[in-house]
Amino acid sequence: MAQHVPRYLERLTPVPQAIEAVRSAAKPVQEVEELPVWEAVGRVLAEPLKAPHDFPPRPRAAYDGYAVRSEDTPGKLRLVGEATIGKIDVGVRVEPGTAVYVSTGAYLPEGADTVVPEEAVKLENGYIVIDKHFQPGKNFDPVGSYVRKGQVLLDKGHVVTELDVVGLLDVAVTRVRVYRRVRAAIIATGTELFEPRDPAEAEERILRGEVAETTAKLVESMIRRYTPWVSVEWRVLLPDNVDTIAWYIERQARGLDVVVLTGGTGPSEVDPFYQLAERLGGRVLFRGLFVKGGRPTSAMLLPSGLLVVALSGHPVSALHGFVRLLYHVLKHIGGAVRGGEPPLQATARLAEPVKAKRPQPVKVKLRLGSDGALEAVPLPLDRQMSSVTVSNVEADGIAIIKEARIYEKGEWVPVHVYREPQGYD
Amino acid sequence: MAQHVPRYLERLTPVPQAIEAVRSAAKPVQEVEELPVWEAVGRVLAEPLKAPHDFPPRPRAAYDGYAVRSEDTPGKLRLVGEATIGKIDVGVRVEPGTAVYVSTGAYLPEGADTVVPEEAVKLENGYIVIDKHFQPGKNFDPVGSYVRKGQVLLDKGHVVTELDVVGLLDVAVTRVRVYRRVRAAIIATGTELFEPRDPAEAEERILRGEVAETTAKLVESMIRRYTPWVSVEWRVLLPDNVDTIAWYIERQARGLDVVVLTGGTGPSEVDPFYQLAERLGGRVLFRGLFVKGGRPTSAMLLPSGLLVVALSGHPVSALHGFVRLLYHVLKHIGGAVRGGEPPLQATARLAEPVKAKRPQPVKVKLRLGSDGALEAVPLPLDRQMSSVTVSNVEADGIAIIKEARIYEKGEWVPVHVYREPQGYD
Repeated sequence: MAQHVPRYLERLTPVPQAIEAVRSAAKPVQEVEELPVWEAVGRVLAEPLKAPHDFPPRPRAAYDGYAVRSEDTPGKLRLVGEATIGKIDVGVRVEPGTAVYVSTGAYLPEGADTVVPEEAVKLENGYIVIDKHFQPGKNFDPVGSYVRKGQVLLDKGHVVTELDVVGLLDVAVTRVRVYRRVRAAIIATGTELFEPRDPAEAEERILRGEVAETTAKLVESMIRRYTPWVSVEWRVLLPDNVDTIAWYIERQARGLDVVVLTGGTGPSEVDPFYQLAERLGGRVLFRGLFVKGGRPTSAMLLPSGLLVVALSGHPVSALHGFVRLLYHVLKHIGGAVRGGEPPLQATARLAEPVKAKRPQPVKVKLRLGSDGALEAVPLPLDRQMSSVTVSNVEADGIAIIKEARIYEKGEWVPVHVYREPQGYD
Repeated sequence: MAQHVPRYLERLTPVPQAIEAVRSAAKPVQEVEELPVWEAVGRVLAEPLKAPHDFPPRPRAAYDGYAVRSEDTPGKLRLVGEATIGKIDVGVRVEPGTAVYVSTGAYLPEGADTVVPEEAVKLENGYIVIDKHFQPGKNFDPVGSYVRKGQVLLDKGHVVTELDVVGLLDVAVTRVRVYRRVRAAIIATGTELFEPRDPAEAEERILRGEVAETTAKLVESMIRRYTPWVSVEWRVLLPDNVDTIAWYIERQARGLDVVVLTGGTGPSEVDPFYQLAERLGGRVLFRGLFVKGGRPTSAMLLPSGLLVVALSGHPVSALHGFVRLLYHVLKHIGGAVRGGEPPLQATARLAEPVKAKRPQPVKVKLRLGSDGALEAVPLPLDRQMSSVTVSNVEADGIAIIKEARIYEKGEWVPVHVYREPQGYD
């Protein structure tokens, strides 16, 4: 019986296989909703986003100036009206020998085939004088020159960014169809933990050896910042008690897509994750990730379809578990192919070699090199130790070491940056 | 009189001088408040943060195991008690011939000078058998090994990150002194603008040539994301009318530190920024930034101490103005020396040369190169044009070109990344 599987017996699963195990078992969200584009930042497109119109829908002035017929230039033309922004039908036509004033962005009146910039014109009693020839097609943006009707602007699975909203509204895309948000909750487990509420009391308890819960809060902030298509419905702290955790998941997590557990790594005769799986009738997808500090990282799927992902109780290991595993899982569940702003990772050049016996996070300081490239300087080994969590404040991010090998100085590695690197201005 | 200074006459100010002009005129926030560290994410430290205690305050077990006297190993020792997390006074002493069980993170009992890991021990009827010698000082963290009392953990001016909170709470830092938040407001100006509210109506108005306000919203989201020590108190849309804007700033901006204007770049006989300065009695600190699209970017200081920063009405120019100028101004006003998470910039290697007549933003696609470094591929020139805002959706970020020169392929440039680059896994 699963209940009697001892700990540490199973092979740890490499990251790509772990992600694949979750992908092939857990179903992405299917429900789609239509939103005004300005409410869709951070949401995932449920279908390719196609331009609904040629844009501009009419030729549009690219300068302040005069809409005229090219064949009338050079010449003296009678000013017969003005085309301003916000009017698609200008109401006046450019006939031979006439000109219409246009401001930047205004649609050209019928009859005009070129725009003469304001500064190339002399005004004389209701006439304008143009002293050289202007080719047809000058100084305006033709119909469809920004986008063509039906052109795919963004692919299915893209996460909408603020700059997308700006660009889309500019070509009259005002609605997008996105997947509903992924619904998640977080359970911190750990009998030794307390939720800090009062600074003086918290200080005393920490000095006595109790541990303030910070890992689940960190994971919550990562989810909110880097996977905004996920809504964190609640976060709770529970003791290391399989019955209590099982009850909470059964009773309080209905309607959710994902529950994230942090902690639960203490010594035990039987594996608490398998115990939990048995109580809940869950299918273990993988147990233990082949990365340093990845033993607690695991996933199970419940018969209801609820996915339960366990991360380490240690904050940097949990952060690493988010970067390497949970982020990808939440993309899969949310239908996301490409993330938005801010990106989860940057890349940096190692300023010193790294010897990695396993894939692992390495705490690094980040600075700009003399050539302007980002450089990562690993903290000394004694500050990398998991017990020295305070070294987080000395580091600026974690380098993501994906292979068990020696990394040479000068190699490029992904980094999760959690502080502005030294040297930017 | 300032009112009669025509536009475009003045020399544009290079970015470093513009920042310096603001820094030397505008005063940083001085007021300090004490917060629980878990409420201080994104806030600016008002003084160097010093460790209040040696930590650990007592030797702390680094493994689950047995606290013993080194000189008793190897040997058979009587188990006399247990030291668990959360008790600073264990209440039992390790006398010669005895051992105390300790779990990871528990303080050692008096008398012990080494810890024998659980797996190196055999249990026999209330005794433990250790079959080799353990040196003193093994498997525990000595007093002060993480931090020493008085040690500076973070400098004045650091922005507190989530990982800082984790690290600080681990060594019993529960309070921090931070500057009060910078109070800011945003005024979008532009008679041709409308605030989109209904998708169908917005679509029709955009097709008619009206412009949906997006620039000020973009600036607001940049401030909220990248300068969390600033609170955006309000954002409003006003017509291009100097009297109205002056009235709004005089009447509605009391108690604020900064007002950001976007837009106000339309053609005019007199310079509207100088007109505004005259109405408000403001001192113009610089007028026009020497970057492409930077002509509207300006700053003035009012007699009340309120700083008014104007950015372009064009979204990418405003974004660039945020990255190059406003971000640094808001750091100065907020007392910040080093930003937090997420960082505003990454660095990328240009995949093609860039010819820059002026410092400028260049829209780029971002991808991982074969060596794992981030590469920036500029969009074609016709998609760089300011009228083609829709190209924002084709780009993944903007490269920050700081000098007017030819940049070679392979040079490193800062990038503001607004979409996950291609190729991360």
